[in-house]
Amino acid sequence: MAAGRIQLPIALDAMGGDNAPGCVLRGASMALIRHPGLRFLLYGNRYILEPLLADIPQLKAASEIIHTEGVIAGDDKPSIAVRRGRNSSMWLSIESVKEGKSCAVVSAGNTGALMAMSKLILRTLPGISRPAIAALFPTLRGECVMLDLGANVESDANDLYRFAIMGDAFARAVLGLSRPRIGLLNVGSEELKGKDEVKAAAALLKANTLDLNFHGFIEGNDIAEGTVDVVVTDGFTGNIALKTAEGAARLIRTYLKEAFASSPIARGGALMAYGALRAVKDKLDDRKRNGAMFLGLNGIAVKSHGGADAFSFCNAISVAVELVAHHINTRISQEITLLSEQAAAGEAV
Amino acid sequence: MAAGRIQLPIALDAMGGDNAPGCVLRGASMALIRHPGLRFLLYGNRYILEPLLADIPQLKAASEIIHTEGVIAGDDKPSIAVRRGRNSSMWLSIESVKEGKSCAVVSAGNTGALMAMSKLILRTLPGISRPAIAALFPTLRGECVMLDLGANVESDANDLYRFAIMGDAFARAVLGLSRPRIGLLNVGSEELKGKDEVKAAAALLKANTLDLNFHGFIEGNDIAEGTVDVVVTDGFTGNIALKTAEGAARLIRTYLKEAFASSPIARGGALMAYGALRAVKDKLDDRKRNGAMFLGLNGIAVKSHGGADAFSFCNAISVAVELVAHHINTRISQEITLLSEQAAAGEAV
Repeated sequence: MAAGRIQLPIALDAMGGDNAPGCVLRGASMALIRHPGLRFLLYGNRYILEPLLADIPQLKAASEIIHTEGVIAGDDKPSIAVRRGRNSSMWLSIESVKEGKSCAVVSAGNTGALMAMSKLILRTLPGISRPAIAALFPTLRGECVMLDLGANVESDANDLYRFAIMGDAFARAVLGLSRPRIGLLNVGSEELKGKDEVKAAAALLKANTLDLNFHGFIEGNDIAEGTVDVVVTDGFTGNIALKTAEGAARLIRTYLKEAFASSPIARGGALMAYGALRAVKDKLDDRKRNGAMFLGLNGIAVKSHGGADAFSFCNAISVAVELVAHHINTRISQEITLLSEQAAAGEAV
Repeated sequence: MAAGRIQLPIALDAMGGDNAPGCVLRGASMALIRHPGLRFLLYGNRYILEPLLADIPQLKAASEIIHTEGVIAGDDKPSIAVRRGRNSSMWLSIESVKEGKSCAVVSAGNTGALMAMSKLILRTLPGISRPAIAALFPTLRGECVMLDLGANVESDANDLYRFAIMGDAFARAVLGLSRPRIGLLNVGSEELKGKDEVKAAAALLKANTLDLNFHGFIEGNDIAEGTVDVVVTDGFTGNIALKTAEGAARLIRTYLKEAFASSPIARGGALMAYGALRAVKDKLDDRKRNGAMFLGLNGIAVKSHGGADAFSFCNAISVAVELVAHHINTRISQEITLLSEQAAAGEAV
C-alpha cells in the first residue's frame, strides 16, 4: 500500500463517539503501525488527552493536540450542534481540513451533526448539490460500495447520476478496482419498472460517455450477491435497506446463539466448530468495514461508527488514508467537469 | 382454528409457478388435511390435471377441474398477459372470486401479471386507490406483517395511512393479534426526519380515531427486532429492504456452509450441532411464511412464491383461509368507511 509511505496529516475528533477518547487514541496508534507516515491533529480537551497520550509515546511523537472546549453529544440535534458547537472538537477538526492543515478528518461522533457541519464548513464540490454517505457492504464476491446511506431523503436523476460517479471513485480508491461495475437499485431488473427518477438516472448512465461501467438495474438481493461493485440508490432506500439487512443478520446471530446453547451436545458441536464459526464471524465483522465517507464535499470527512473500538476506528482512519492517497476528490471533480463540458456542448447531462 | 371447519371454495391457479401443477396439487392435498372443510376449483389443463388427481383420491373428491387453455409464463410482461391471457388459468381463477364462485384465489404464477389481472378483475375496495402487497417477516419476538412490498413504486401520505389500516387487518387475521402495533418505516425515529409523505402519514396516524395502535417511526433494524407488528412503507422501499435482507441471510447461510465444510473437525461439530442448526434453519424457513396478499382489492388474492414446493403452497392456501375466515375485507371496508365519515364530518382524513 503506497499510502503507508506518504506523510499525511489527519485530523481526529478525539472527543467523538461512545468510547472516546480512549478508542480514538488506541485506533490512531494502530493506524500508525499500518501507515507509518501518518501525523495526527488531535482535537479535544488537552487535560484529558495529555495523560492518555503519555502512555502511548509512539503516538505522542506523531501527534499534536489542539485544545478544544466543546463536545457534541450523541443526541444533540444537528441544527443546534451547528449553531452552538463552533468551539467543539468536531467543528474544529473539520475546519482543519478546510484550512489545509489536514488532509482528512475522522470522527466517531453524532452522524447528523458531522454531516451538517461538514456540509457547512467544507461545502459541496462544484457541480454537486447533494453529498452522499458511502460505505462498504460484504458480498459473496468480496465487498461492494453502497450509497447514499442517508445523507438525503430524496434524490432526482441527476443526483443519482452523480452518486454513481462518486461511488465509482470510492470503489477505485478503497477497493482498488479499475472499472467498478455500477448498479442502480430498483424493484425489478426490467427497464420498464421502477420510479421515474430511477429510470431517468438509468438512461443517463446508459448514455454516459465518462468512464463509467454501468451494469443496469439491480434488485435488493443482488447487493449481497455481489452482482455489482457500486450500488447506487437514494438515501431513504439505502439507509433502510442497510439497516434492515443488519437487523436480519442480528436475528440470525441470535437464533444461532440460542440454538448452540440449547443442549450439551449442541454446545459440544459449537465448540468443535469454533474455528469455523469464528471465521464466519470474522467475515461478517462490521468493524473491518468501518468508515463511511461523506462524498461530494470539498474535503474528506470519514464517519466512524459511534460505538467503534480501537480496531474499528483504525479501519476508519485507513479509509481516510486510501481516499487521500487516491485523490478521490480530484477524480470526482474531473468527472463532474467532463459532465458539465458535455452538457455545455449539448450532450446528455 | 375455526377456519378448518368452514366450508370454503378456494380457486387455485393450477398452472402457475415453477413446480406447477404437481406442487399445487400436493399443496392442496396437504391443506385439505389442515382445513377439512376446503373445496378447490382447479383452473388448468384437464388433460394434465386429471391423471395427477387420479393419484390423490381425497383431493379429487374435494375438487372440481375447470379446464383452461392458456398459461401465463413467468417472464410474460403484465401488460401483455392482461391483454392476451383472458383464457388463462390465472385470469379465470381470479374471475371466479369476482363471480362469487370461490372465496379466494391462490397462485404461484408471475407476480406482475397476477397483480395486474387482480386489479383489473377484482378492482380496489371503495376508498382505496392503491392496493398493497403484504407478507410476513420473522422477528426476535415472532413475526410481523410488512407492506407494501412492491405493488406500487410511490405512495403519498393517504396511501400509507390506508396501508396501515390494511396491515392492521392482516395482522389481526393472520397473526391473531387484538391490537397490532403499527410502525412507519423511516430513516430515523425523530419526528423531524424523513420524507414529507412519511411525516404527513405519521401525523395522520397519530391523530387517528380508528382503532389503530400507532407506535411511531421505526428504522430498518427495528423490523427483525420485532419493535412493531405491522411495518408500513412504500412499495419501492419495502421491496428493496425485503430483498436486501433475504440476500444478507443467503450470504450468511453460504458463509456458514463453507465454514462447516472447511475441515473434518468443523464437519464433526456441524454434525453434533445438527439438531440445533436444523432448528435455526426451520425458524428462518421462508416456506412457513409463504403467501403474500394483494390487500385493498375487492376479493382475496394470495400470491405464493413461484418456486414453492407442496408444503410452501399449502401455507399460502392457509393464509387465504385465515383471511377469508377473518373477513379481512369487511374489516378494511369498515375502517375506510369510518375514515370517510370522519372526513365528511370535517375531521382529519
